[in-house]
Amino acid sequence: MFEYLRNPRTVAVVGASPDSKKIGNAVLDNLVKSGFSGHIYPVNPSYNEIMGLKCYPSLDHLERGLDLVVIALPARKAIEFLDQCVRNVARFVVIIAGGFSETGEEGRMLEEQIKVKIGGSQTRVIGPNTVGLLFPHSGLNTALTPSDRLYYPGKGNIGFVSQSGALGLLVMDSITEHGLGVSGFVNIGNRADVTEVELLSMFAEDPNTKSIVLYLESIADGEEFFARAMEISMKKPIVVLKTGRSTEAARAASLHTGAMATDDRVLDGILKQSGVIRAYDEVELMDYGKALAYQVPPRGDRIAVVTTAGGVGVVTTDLLTTSRDGIKMRMATFSESEKADLKAHVLPIASVNNPIDLTADGSTDAYESILKILTASDGVDGIIAYALPQTPKIDMDIVSALKQAAEKKPLVAGVIGYRLATKILMELERAKVPAFPSVRRTTDAMKALYRYGLYKRRLESAS
Amino acid sequence: MFEYLRNPRTVAVVGASPDSKKIGNAVLDNLVKSGFSGHIYPVNPSYNEIMGLKCYPSLDHLERGLDLVVIALPARKAIEFLDQCVRNVARFVVIIAGGFSETGEEGRMLEEQIKVKIGGSQTRVIGPNTVGLLFPHSGLNTALTPSDRLYYPGKGNIGFVSQSGALGLLVMDSITEHGLGVSGFVNIGNRADVTEVELLSMFAEDPNTKSIVLYLESIADGEEFFARAMEISMKKPIVVLKTGRSTEAARAASLHTGAMATDDRVLDGILKQSGVIRAYDEVELMDYGKALAYQVPPRGDRIAVVTTAGGVGVVTTDLLTTSRDGIKMRMATFSESEKADLKAHVLPIASVNNPIDLTADGSTDAYESILKILTASDGVDGIIAYALPQTPKIDMDIVSALKQAAEKKPLVAGVIGYRLATKILMELERAKVPAFPSVRRTTDAMKALYRYGLYKRRLESAS
Repeated sequence: MFEYLRNPRTVAVVGASPDSKKIGNAVLDNLVKSGFSGHIYPVNPSYNEIMGLKCYPSLDHLERGLDLVVIALPARKAIEFLDQCVRNVARFVVIIAGGFSETGEEGRMLEEQIKVKIGGSQTRVIGPNTVGLLFPHSGLNTALTPSDRLYYPGKGNIGFVSQSGALGLLVMDSITEHGLGVSGFVNIGNRADVTEVELLSMFAEDPNTKSIVLYLESIADGEEFFARAMEISMKKPIVVLKTGRSTEAARAASLHTGAMATDDRVLDGILKQSGVIRAYDEVELMDYGKALAYQVPPRGDRIAVVTTAGGVGVVTTDLLTTSRDGIKMRMATFSESEKADLKAHVLPIASVNNPIDLTADGSTDAYESILKILTASDGVDGIIAYALPQTPKIDMDIVSALKQAAEKKPLVAGVIGYRLATKILMELERAKVPAFPSVRRTTDAMKALYRYGLYKRRLESAS
Repeated sequence: MFEYLRNPRTVAVVGASPDSKKIGNAVLDNLVKSGFSGHIYPVNPSYNEIMGLKCYPSLDHLERGLDLVVIALPARKAIEFLDQCVRNVARFVVIIAGGFSETGEEGRMLEEQIKVKIGGSQTRVIGPNTVGLLFPHSGLNTALTPSDRLYYPGKGNIGFVSQSGALGLLVMDSITEHGLGVSGFVNIGNRADVTEVELLSMFAEDPNTKSIVLYLESIADGEEFFARAMEISMKKPIVVLKTGRSTEAARAASLHTGAMATDDRVLDGILKQSGVIRAYDEVELMDYGKALAYQVPPRGDRIAVVTTAGGVGVVTTDLLTTSRDGIKMRMATFSESEKADLKAHVLPIASVNNPIDLTADGSTDAYESILKILTASDGVDGIIAYALPQTPKIDMDIVSALKQAAEKKPLVAGVIGYRLATKILMELERAKVPAFPSVRRTTDAMKALYRYGLYKRRLESAS
């Protein structure tokens, strides 16, 4: 069923417009530009043609059973239009307009109309109050923001569900910086019909999705969510940024999407029990999603750190072995024979204790040899490897060296800097090695992998 | 005296070379390219001319009393060369070479030679084991990494002292992404002679420096450091990233620069007493340095948040009113008359509770009006304002709107995204409005300002 949402054959844009100030213009433009290969039907009685596409006065003039209808009309008109959708057996309808339950009692009653109108039909509704959806693998982008303001991510492996539209769009724009993609994005908005649990299930079934990340201000049905999350997280990691941790934030959330607060400590316990990794800000959300999409969790907490900058190794040790959110890891120790092997690849002044500091002499070749020793070591559960641009013997081949190691043992890469660093980060992304531009983000990503491993082992032994 | 270091009239590069694989080549190249307007003297007996500059066989052939000599020779040769520096009354000598105390007993004894050789002279030494220094206001860059691998920051207001060289270079490369500059950078390396305290004092005197940030793995003289820091932090904020918080990290640090560990809880207490803001990673270090360089601290903890993305406001409220490192702040509350004033500038559906969510209709004009109300409000101690690119009515004039408000009340800006966001961040940097690309970094910067205000008021009332 949700196959029609993430890979529709036909999309109608209701309220499509040639006027670039209208939302129906941006939606149609994004859809055309994203390379959607199915049929696109602009719907607007005022035009015969928009962007070179034949324009239709209503859904009644189209084939029945459209996969996806995006309604870019104001609230009341959108509700009226729902009748046409149901009559023509549209499978999924996206209602963009705000002005529903998030605005008070009158809006809440209007929103009730949605359920009434689609009741008993085959039509499902995303929204209202949604910025739309994005499924790059299907070339589908129905977002409402013009592409001259934001970049939209390309094909990737993270399924992204967001209760907030603007936050979702901004986060997606952010991750394009180093080329991270998504398998899909859905802004559930006021979720009058389709909820986060159904989308969680959709992404669980989707072969392109390797991890699922959710931004939530409230949870529609707690019991259902946690039951499904527990089931899914055994197979695919789930990361949740659930806001409203303080009373003040809960109040802000309720003003934003009409969300009801849950006691945060209760929620925290339930998330842990269901194997869900919690993120506390929008950067952690995508970072953890990326790490979990690309890497299996380490079997234990003993981490080897490889660097060409001693200070970066020291900061990493600090962050890895101390905790802000309850998770500490340990620095791996090497056997004497491993130390001797490692010594062969570094200058006499370099340290083969952990962190392994190759110093300014560190080369891509040395990395390759050292990573081989670390991936073979029984004392090492995971590797944090920095690919740093400041030394002359580190070249772009560092990417394949890290990739090879990451295939053998959980590895997270760190790249600090901007000039060459950006290029290294882009290449690591292309190779699907999880890489991050700061020590904190690198170590936190490794801790997220470790947390998932802990949860998964506990869930497995309990089942 | 330190005037000669940060604004030398003459610089000699010993070991200058036309061979791009030599460190003496990169140092000379960076110096020439950074637009240094004083005299540059390449020194190398093997050449008559390098990069179009006359090359000298020794310092004995130059005027006496050179302000700065950079020695790009191996450890033992550098030590030998010190005699020439002392004989010719060089004021500051940078010894780049490693292979001293960080490598063990033999190196430690070699390093002792530095003190012996300069004892009783007017010559002071930076290093050894240093990547060099950068003073953009003087067009001075003696760093050893070629500029095709790293960008070097331009003129700014942050004085940066780093015990680690590579970490210093990588952090400087990172901050160029959004155009942040420095007033100066010195890598103290093994600090055989010049210590962090002297550089702290130098930056305290420097009119271009508005805040001082230090990366330290150990502190040379604790008592002296804290006495000076307490004095300086009354006038200029100081941020310290001191590593070795865990036993494992302390061990890593001692292997890196031979640093001795201090009990971290003791250190933490002393830093607080001396009004020093502590950072826990390299991003926080520069973020806090930037916020403190550009903004005075808020007088209290009541923060108003303005956004065009509800979700961003909710996450901000969460992070601001909860704590990872002991500092929570409060959401400001508005009087009924302020609420009425605010209402006039937003859609009826928008929230004028705090966070103020202008929704997708939010415009630069509305921001301007709202910021005027907030800067005039007695109930608001500080403002977090998001300049978000996803909505059509936010244009580049948002930068001057934020700038005007920041001149009246402590303000920190947040910009989430990449495409247009990068441009907004660059413009805010040009206007010296502290702006950050994530909710965490934005709220943490506001908390750093607040912490500095708390310390400063306590120091003032104690004196």
